[in-house]
Amino acid sequence: MPKVSEDQLAARRSEILDGARKCFGEFGYEGATVRRLEEATGLSRGAIFHHFKDKDGLFLALAQEDARRMAEVASNQGLVQVMRDMLEEPDRFEWLGTRLEIARRLRTDLDFRRSWAEQSAELTDATAARLERQKTAGRLRDDVAQEVMVDYLDLILDGLVARIASGQGGQNLSAVLDLVEESVRKPDSAS
Amino acid sequence: MPKVSEDQLAARRSEILDGARKCFGEFGYEGATVRRLEEATGLSRGAIFHHFKDKDGLFLALAQEDARRMAEVASNQGLVQVMRDMLEEPDRFEWLGTRLEIARRLRTDLDFRRSWAEQSAELTDATAARLERQKTAGRLRDDVAQEVMVDYLDLILDGLVARIASGQGGQNLSAVLDLVEESVRKPDSAS
Repeated sequence: MPKVSEDQLAARRSEILDGARKCFGEFGYEGATVRRLEEATGLSRGAIFHHFKDKDGLFLALAQEDARRMAEVASNQGLVQVMRDMLEEPDRFEWLGTRLEIARRLRTDLDFRRSWAEQSAELTDATAARLERQKTAGRLRDDVAQEVMVDYLDLILDGLVARIASGQGGQNLSAVLDLVEESVRKPDSAS
Repeated sequence: MPKVSEDQLAARRSEILDGARKCFGEFGYEGATVRRLEEATGLSRGAIFHHFKDKDGLFLALAQEDARRMAEVASNQGLVQVMRDMLEEPDRFEWLGTRLEIARRLRTDLDFRRSWAEQSAELTDATAARLERQKTAGRLRDDVAQEVMVDYLDLILDGLVARIASGQGGQNLSAVLDLVEESVRKPDSAS
């Protein structure tokens, strides 16, 4: 039997993640049973859990994949742009509703909380770094501490995830994001 | 057997709601089984479901009770004050995490979504009415449509619920709410 190449392993891993994302999006965290994960990925449980330790591992890997993509956008265009992308393609982010289901676990399961914090740090760091650059360029108001701004933007992201997850987009959200963007900007800086 | 008075019925109803709130807060929507609801309220299922049609009915009654209380605060002091109250007493609002669990149902179950929308309308209306009065008093910026402001504040409330539900308060949140308040206020109006 030929040895499986690194590329093949990576491709397989990515296939599993795509299927799992759909499965979590459709059935939620609890509803994404091993059987449904098998159906969604077209692979056996053996194959799936060869790549990921368990369902938590799969979930956290998806969260990390998202955080990485979002961090890239946040780093170049800011966290508000990440949110605008979400509004554009809510379907792609439907699986994020799963994040809401795990809220109680985040509150009570310290290990899980730690793993979650690790994967979200990347996005927070990217957001903070971008704000720092904007500040240096004189585009940011300077009467609000930077960590307050990061928390403000994060809170709005959390709200948006809740909205999208419950299918309550609302036609005003694009204008809401304009208001958010403007509220961290220096009043006299160009838009 | 003496007839139960209106007052006694109301007291019993309120007892059930208090117990159910704790039960939902501790075990979540799915976890709040009929048996656990019996334990939490100290009443039989017969007694509980004499007052409420089913678990959904109980859940929506709690949501309505909250919406009513919040609407009162929102009407007099604004939605940001509602959020400040939440930060002060996160434990009282722990049950709100249940809202996150029902996100998928809100997306897919139209009847449930309609009932939910009815109970949240009261808070939205109170917020809008308060904004209107603030605007008339010249305290609100006038370059942002009022429905955008309502949606903005609502989105931040959703984010805050998600934070509290997952136990991630964050020490900056009070300063974040200052920023929120200021971002809808007229720049030159007194704070």
